[in-house]
Amino acid sequence: MSRITVNLPQNSYDIAIGEAGGQSSIASGNLSQLGLEMQQLNLGKKVLVISNPEIFNYYGDICVKSLEQAGFEVFTHLIPAGETYKHLGSIQQVYDTALNHHLERSSTFVALGGGVIGDMTGFAAATWLRGVNFVQVPTSLLAMVDASVGGKTGVNHPKGKNLIGAFYQPKLVLINPNVLKTLPVREFRAGMAEVIKYGIIWDKDLFEQLIAAEDLSCLEIIAPQLLETIITRSCQAKAEVVSKDEKESGLRAILNYGHTIGHAIESLTNYEQLVHGEAVAIGMVAAGKIAVKMGLWKADEGKLQDDLITKTGLPTAIPPQVTIEDILETVKSDKKVKAGKVRFILPTQIGNVIITDQVTPEIISQALKGN
Amino acid sequence: MSRITVNLPQNSYDIAIGEAGGQSSIASGNLSQLGLEMQQLNLGKKVLVISNPEIFNYYGDICVKSLEQAGFEVFTHLIPAGETYKHLGSIQQVYDTALNHHLERSSTFVALGGGVIGDMTGFAAATWLRGVNFVQVPTSLLAMVDASVGGKTGVNHPKGKNLIGAFYQPKLVLINPNVLKTLPVREFRAGMAEVIKYGIIWDKDLFEQLIAAEDLSCLEIIAPQLLETIITRSCQAKAEVVSKDEKESGLRAILNYGHTIGHAIESLTNYEQLVHGEAVAIGMVAAGKIAVKMGLWKADEGKLQDDLITKTGLPTAIPPQVTIEDILETVKSDKKVKAGKVRFILPTQIGNVIITDQVTPEIISQALKGN
Repeated sequence: MSRITVNLPQNSYDIAIGEAGGQSSIASGNLSQLGLEMQQLNLGKKVLVISNPEIFNYYGDICVKSLEQAGFEVFTHLIPAGETYKHLGSIQQVYDTALNHHLERSSTFVALGGGVIGDMTGFAAATWLRGVNFVQVPTSLLAMVDASVGGKTGVNHPKGKNLIGAFYQPKLVLINPNVLKTLPVREFRAGMAEVIKYGIIWDKDLFEQLIAAEDLSCLEIIAPQLLETIITRSCQAKAEVVSKDEKESGLRAILNYGHTIGHAIESLTNYEQLVHGEAVAIGMVAAGKIAVKMGLWKADEGKLQDDLITKTGLPTAIPPQVTIEDILETVKSDKKVKAGKVRFILPTQIGNVIITDQVTPEIISQALKGN
Repeated sequence: MSRITVNLPQNSYDIAIGEAGGQSSIASGNLSQLGLEMQQLNLGKKVLVISNPEIFNYYGDICVKSLEQAGFEVFTHLIPAGETYKHLGSIQQVYDTALNHHLERSSTFVALGGGVIGDMTGFAAATWLRGVNFVQVPTSLLAMVDASVGGKTGVNHPKGKNLIGAFYQPKLVLINPNVLKTLPVREFRAGMAEVIKYGIIWDKDLFEQLIAAEDLSCLEIIAPQLLETIITRSCQAKAEVVSKDEKESGLRAILNYGHTIGHAIESLTNYEQLVHGEAVAIGMVAAGKIAVKMGLWKADEGKLQDDLITKTGLPTAIPPQVTIEDILETVKSDKKVKAGKVRFILPTQIGNVIITDQVTPEIISQALKGN
């Protein structure tokens, strides 16, 4: 079991990562340590575990039992799975449950699930009684390597994703790599897109370990040791970036590598055709092309990235029905647009990127059309 | 014009307090400095002023004009006056306005109004795009001396006040004492209850200045100099307490002096009969009696407090239809109850209080019945 400390000025916390594979069944993994881990943090007596029915069916009992054995009084609140439930109405129902069970300021909301459950639980925790304790038990690769670090919580507005939210740090993140066994392969690959991103923007060694692997397209063929590395180094990379920029004022923007065009493509396909990680994969390929076109990045490194994305079973091509003109239009209306200027994160070498607002529509167009 | 800096580990900000009385009409007061003050903080270009129709009618133009002259692009969002609109539905409408006008992360929400507008604007600012800039222009005495320091924002849940919210600090608080001219006298007195509280819990000198005044029951008979002192020293007192305890984990609890029983009485009269400050006044008298009963406080100091409350035109007696048994029952269900123990803030001398969970129902009952 390894631990990463996310150092923040006021709200540092640990990510506890259990062993992958080997003899360890899920039951004997670190999920059964949840109660003891939380006990050591001097949290209050009451815990509200928030999950979706499917995930709770797999892992609810072991978490609840662990918490009860450690002396916590445990309540549960289930939200149907899926992005369509990620709205304020679902949060209001969490409030109602918290009220009915008299949760106090010292109580804890535990998110047991993927990104949607984590984002919603975090936002509910941030806003109930002006903030109760928050603990994350991510069950998707994306939630492990992305949502578990950074403190981003929130829900969707009818007109845009994650427009309503707060920065709110957990007290603990507990990761059991073996729960990924129940994750659909498409979701696994989507998480891998973010892992590849950390390699490009921050961690050359992680990138090289990924390159060295023969196949990354599903969990079963990844060596347990590599899976642990993937999770640990991704969390470490994000933790390092976030520690230096908690509120997303500067450096943290590099985490949006691949997201500028990725978001545009997600939006243009109505969030129906691609999952987020797939859009990010396509966005990284696009950003790579722009960087190469601008002479910032060597073409052969760009190819290494694209091959790695392909090896992971992720898409690299913009869906045929999306035009480059649509992308240009959509990019301009992104919520991260600052004073009208579109910011791009572009690689200069593996493990290093720059933030620039010098990418013109012409360059994007030429790079994506391969002119 | 005086300035107080609220020192916090990450989010320090200034309270700019204008001159009271004299030749200064409202128009020539510091409201017209709002734009320049905000300009100095390097906030983004777009500003959403949130107010209620009545307040905006008085002070909206001068604020908007000042902002526009300083180069800001200004939008407004009005919420009908009153606590009944302090709910998530009103916040959703703020989100819609923010979306329609494309407010960005660097944009600013300005609260122009009393406590309800301030709490709601702060919560909307805390949760739109995971936090935009927040500036307060409080127009009630209570909002000036209480809500402008401490970062408490939020809305009501159908079953309880302020259950939904966040701690979120403003970038600036701008106070013009002269706007109190349009504040109903009952609201003015309610604000004075909190001022008296600061005297008891923290600032003996403020208390003595209040004692020295002949009459405090309405704004018109208070000398401009004393009004400035009242606002400045109250903000200072709260800023000192909050600076030492931003997230209400310890010391900050002393700000709840008078609130334990005050809240219970508010709740038992369905928030209809008394305004908050009146309930706090009654709660301070009750807490004083308990402190005297327990031998913690001298009876003559308790009487000084009670006389001051009376001189301010505030009630001191528990409403006849509220029984002491009801109060005991309600106090136990207060959201600030920690691990089942009721915390009381009790004076030991003017300017000093202790936090204790040693107050038994018997003591409360005896003190309030005068046994």
